[in-house]
Amino acid sequence: MPNEYVLAGDVGGTNLRIAAVDSDGTVVHQESVPTPQTRVASDVVAAISQVASSCIANCGIGGRPLAFGLAMATLVNSREGKSLRSPNLPELNGLSVADAIGKQVGLKVLLENDATAAAIGEHWLGSSQKVDNSIFVTLGTGVGGGLILDGRVFRGADGTAGEIGHICVEPEGHQCGCGSRGCVEQYASATAISRIAEELAQKDQTSSLSGVAGVSSKDVYDAAKTGDGVGLETFRIMARYLGIALAGLVDVLNPNLIVIGGGAAGAWDLFIDPVREEIVERAFGPPAKTVQLVRASLGNSAGILGAARVALDAESHI
Amino acid sequence: MPNEYVLAGDVGGTNLRIAAVDSDGTVVHQESVPTPQTRVASDVVAAISQVASSCIANCGIGGRPLAFGLAMATLVNSREGKSLRSPNLPELNGLSVADAIGKQVGLKVLLENDATAAAIGEHWLGSSQKVDNSIFVTLGTGVGGGLILDGRVFRGADGTAGEIGHICVEPEGHQCGCGSRGCVEQYASATAISRIAEELAQKDQTSSLSGVAGVSSKDVYDAAKTGDGVGLETFRIMARYLGIALAGLVDVLNPNLIVIGGGAAGAWDLFIDPVREEIVERAFGPPAKTVQLVRASLGNSAGILGAARVALDAESHI
Repeated sequence: MPNEYVLAGDVGGTNLRIAAVDSDGTVVHQESVPTPQTRVASDVVAAISQVASSCIANCGIGGRPLAFGLAMATLVNSREGKSLRSPNLPELNGLSVADAIGKQVGLKVLLENDATAAAIGEHWLGSSQKVDNSIFVTLGTGVGGGLILDGRVFRGADGTAGEIGHICVEPEGHQCGCGSRGCVEQYASATAISRIAEELAQKDQTSSLSGVAGVSSKDVYDAAKTGDGVGLETFRIMARYLGIALAGLVDVLNPNLIVIGGGAAGAWDLFIDPVREEIVERAFGPPAKTVQLVRASLGNSAGILGAARVALDAESHI
Repeated sequence: MPNEYVLAGDVGGTNLRIAAVDSDGTVVHQESVPTPQTRVASDVVAAISQVASSCIANCGIGGRPLAFGLAMATLVNSREGKSLRSPNLPELNGLSVADAIGKQVGLKVLLENDATAAAIGEHWLGSSQKVDNSIFVTLGTGVGGGLILDGRVFRGADGTAGEIGHICVEPEGHQCGCGSRGCVEQYASATAISRIAEELAQKDQTSSLSGVAGVSSKDVYDAAKTGDGVGLETFRIMARYLGIALAGLVDVLNPNLIVIGGGAAGAWDLFIDPVREEIVERAFGPPAKTVQLVRASLGNSAGILGAARVALDAESHI
């Protein structure tokens, strides 16, 4: 059928992107604006609705989209379309985001956690295509995750499943924004890489990172590549804890594949071997042998494409 | 259809039980013998086959069983019917147990990990009936687990999924038989309860457990019930670590239910409140609010009944 398309959005704390995507996964048109920083829920809803309408008007396809899939950096009750808890968009907590936006744009809106959407995107068009059991891990500001089990996205009882970033890897470890302590997010996110390097650099004046304010994870990577001790030790710590969390998931879920994306995945060459070693050391032999670790291939389009897939699937169920 | 039944077995390190079970889950006949301690694979296979044949002859149903489901305390590749790794039955490691027994008894044999079989049994006839997403946890000699996700057993890529006992809860913690360190099994199994209490009692001469050789988890429970400090501290440690592991599973899998069975589940009143508190403290609010913790209801029949269900399902797929 010609002209069939969906809207797909990815709303982060910084940017809000919405695209018109056809049933093959081609992004026909995309618009992006900064996410409103007003901390008023109706402003965020209005901004999303406005970009969505603009996208429909400007995409050049003609006709209405079938549905609107929306990936957000928030704990999502996907069944009810509710945002439950977001560090970046707290004003939406408890709001039926799908309903609110659906009313404004006149479309069925499917809300999805951004990492789960990325898992769906990678399974549709990226690194985990045709693989039945995969875990998507994103190493960004936080550590997020999404699960493809037995060939389908797994959302759990309410749709909040996949929050692998809050697996505890150090019982009395670093305080986490989630309220717990020692979550893997506090050791393996881009934010954590910066923090750990800054802490280590305070004690090691020989490091090129010593005395530098606002060290980024890229700075730590660059330093490590020149042999800087603080940089190397930071990635050793990061890989160890990421490996501990993934080893547990290998034993519990026996996946074929773990797909790693997000900004800090750029440091792949520095952490992947020790992560693999930690998995081999800790997980049972057979599932450790089965699992492959690969990089995500869709970059920051994974969430949009996954949201598009969710919208296409929702429509096909009607 | 009359006279339809399956064989179902549960092979542990100590006993070998086989039953004739009808399609309603009624155990029509059951036989039990000690598991051969010869450490020769063919002896174990022969013993299982012999009890199976005896069970068919003596069950009084007439006709042949549809199939034979076999739960074993081993890491199982359920797709290939292989035992991969067993602390209690190491002689079977790498053996195609299903094929070997199938040839001797002339039946299709489905091999299943015992905790996964118990999860299936509890989902069929026990505590997790009609619940779509549940985690079965058994606290026995080790800590085992089985997953019911989206209404079906989840086995992962090879059939080894569900090994929740080897989630790491203390990175440099107690050495585990699996080769890793700090697995939850080293803190929450019946074996661990005994070990922790013995360690604590060595430092506390006021404890009723001090100086006692071969303390059982039941002894620790009884001591704790009388207010013994070592007993209470042991269950505080056990509950904390079990709670840490389960909190991670709550975030990752967003289950409706966690079903706890096995011998150490008898200490329910001593550990369940602190386990719940640890989950509430560590997991995200929404999935922590959703999940309910309940006791398994089928006792040591869960594995046999789950194995029977597997056999019935395999037959219905033909």
